[in-house]
Amino acid sequence: MAPFASPSPVSVVRSAVDGELVSFCASHRTRLLEIGEELAPAMDALEAMLSGGKRLRPTFCYWGWRGGGGADGDARVVRAAASLEFLQACALMHDDVIDRSDTRRGLPATHRRLAALHTEHGWSGDADSFGEGAAILIGDLCLAWSDEMYQASGFAPEVLQGGRAPFDAMRTEVMAGQYLDTLEQVRGTESREAALRVMRYKAAKYTIERPLHLGAALAGRLDALGGVYTGYGMPLGVAFQLRDDVLGVFGDPGTTGKPAGDDLREGKRTLVVAETLERADSGAADRFRSLLGTPDLSEASVEWMCALIEDSGALKACERLIEEYSEQALSALESPELDGSAREPLRWLVDAATSRTH
Amino acid sequence: MAPFASPSPVSVVRSAVDGELVSFCASHRTRLLEIGEELAPAMDALEAMLSGGKRLRPTFCYWGWRGGGGADGDARVVRAAASLEFLQACALMHDDVIDRSDTRRGLPATHRRLAALHTEHGWSGDADSFGEGAAILIGDLCLAWSDEMYQASGFAPEVLQGGRAPFDAMRTEVMAGQYLDTLEQVRGTESREAALRVMRYKAAKYTIERPLHLGAALAGRLDALGGVYTGYGMPLGVAFQLRDDVLGVFGDPGTTGKPAGDDLREGKRTLVVAETLERADSGAADRFRSLLGTPDLSEASVEWMCALIEDSGALKACERLIEEYSEQALSALESPELDGSAREPLRWLVDAATSRTH
Repeated sequence: MAPFASPSPVSVVRSAVDGELVSFCASHRTRLLEIGEELAPAMDALEAMLSGGKRLRPTFCYWGWRGGGGADGDARVVRAAASLEFLQACALMHDDVIDRSDTRRGLPATHRRLAALHTEHGWSGDADSFGEGAAILIGDLCLAWSDEMYQASGFAPEVLQGGRAPFDAMRTEVMAGQYLDTLEQVRGTESREAALRVMRYKAAKYTIERPLHLGAALAGRLDALGGVYTGYGMPLGVAFQLRDDVLGVFGDPGTTGKPAGDDLREGKRTLVVAETLERADSGAADRFRSLLGTPDLSEASVEWMCALIEDSGALKACERLIEEYSEQALSALESPELDGSAREPLRWLVDAATSRTH
Repeated sequence: MAPFASPSPVSVVRSAVDGELVSFCASHRTRLLEIGEELAPAMDALEAMLSGGKRLRPTFCYWGWRGGGGADGDARVVRAAASLEFLQACALMHDDVIDRSDTRRGLPATHRRLAALHTEHGWSGDADSFGEGAAILIGDLCLAWSDEMYQASGFAPEVLQGGRAPFDAMRTEVMAGQYLDTLEQVRGTESREAALRVMRYKAAKYTIERPLHLGAALAGRLDALGGVYTGYGMPLGVAFQLRDDVLGVFGDPGTTGKPAGDDLREGKRTLVVAETLERADSGAADRFRSLLGTPDLSEASVEWMCALIEDSGALKACERLIEEYSEQALSALESPELDGSAREPLRWLVDAATSRTH
């Protein structure tokens, strides 16, 4: 996300969330090492993954709570919000295994880290298989620790129970969304609707709507605010993902951490791609289709594809959608049900999520 | 486990647990298909995995509850106990990916099922990669649904909160144990202590001790019974795993579902192996070591290895340990803290877990 004026609605949450994650990890490292000291590299890898990221889900959870009238800086909601980072860590570790990605945020992916450990020690068997197996297990640990941290956040048990509906829905939705995404890639889907569905489940609900719902539920205000947060979170989430998809094609590697054209090389079935194939003439569409997903795509081919995305009007259509969805999100914030303290931060987040350059 | 006199302490729990799993899956299938109809094969694979198995963990959870004075046939404890089957389903699906196992209980492993779906539809990309990715995600769904089902079991929120300590410990321990197991394989560890540690975390705590603790906690009797169930569950769990390891070498493929010598071909670092290497003379140990983990081990080599396990005294030592540990488990049941209704079933389970032929 773009450089923040400090303190921003993100930065205030981030430092509190970081502190809770550090303290949870410290106690759990002790427990793991009691089981076996050889678990230290697994814990190192887990902490390395947790140390990065924008803390988007905790941020929306926190402002969902404040919008429901929850108290400023309540340590319980910070812990409940931080628990979503463990879910995200699992999702990223497992995604990287599934996609065979070598890096994550410019550092070796978890399975690559553990494969390197295998090589370094000269253990028997295949280093890559060991790395993948270890990353699957460390991801599982993150998933289990997510709800452990949520349940141990300090809220009364019946309050926590009230938050389970969004908490559980979020997990089912992100895993289902990820499965559908994997499926769309191998089916080579070209429809706008399929691309939008993946965006709704993998991005909008998971990153924005459900975390807001969770915050509202913990504040005892899900009934009143559920619709407001859906009206804000769903369009914003799609706009956010669209911005991500545009950056995945055109983005500057200096700021995004991945080379321009990366999504084209990977063959991601994004809305940008669907719009391009829909709008281009059939010859150009055929060529675009045949280049999409070529791992060693040349610079020249990337340039040609980028030009087609622009010339066909697909880029402009996506930018217009980002604009429209952002407006929709902003207008949902007019609701009188929303506590005034959250209105400005939630407005700020629309801008940050859709105008960012990385 | 050996054929049961019907109704046995296992069979009464099993049918109730099966019913709760079927009903949970029915409602969650509906939710998944609302997200996308293409999720049906994922749900089919999940249900196929859940439909098998001995329901050992739910059985111990249930009798842990009864031993704490919990009521006969309480639907809430059946649901909480059944939730452990989702954890087990995740563990098995992910293990099969990690070990690249083609079958599970004589049927295609989850990742093989999904790879076949890919091939059948002629989708693009690599069928095996698709299958593995899908199995990782379906396993994640199982892990998330495990604590969802637990939290929705119908107990009061504060009662559920009281069960979280064993519930959470169990998950961390099985994942840590699985990681250590993977590590011991690649390190080619030969020590008894390392083999015992994996047995304690992967088998004893996960399969027996923690499920009993969970049942006791739900009955509000963990303080009084924690030590009793540890005294019963830890030796029984190690004895159970030892029986499994002996069957993995000598077992009749007709009853175990895997060929004799299978664990030798896989190169599993079991206590049976550690005892053999410790006891055999150095020439025989070297030969045994060089054969261990050879995927295409001949019948003759398997026979030679089996003979060494017997002749070295390793088999007898393991059988003696099974005997001793079973005695220890039985004597823990003398505790006056234990509700009398659970004593006979828990005794029966010692016999069933250690004398079984498959």
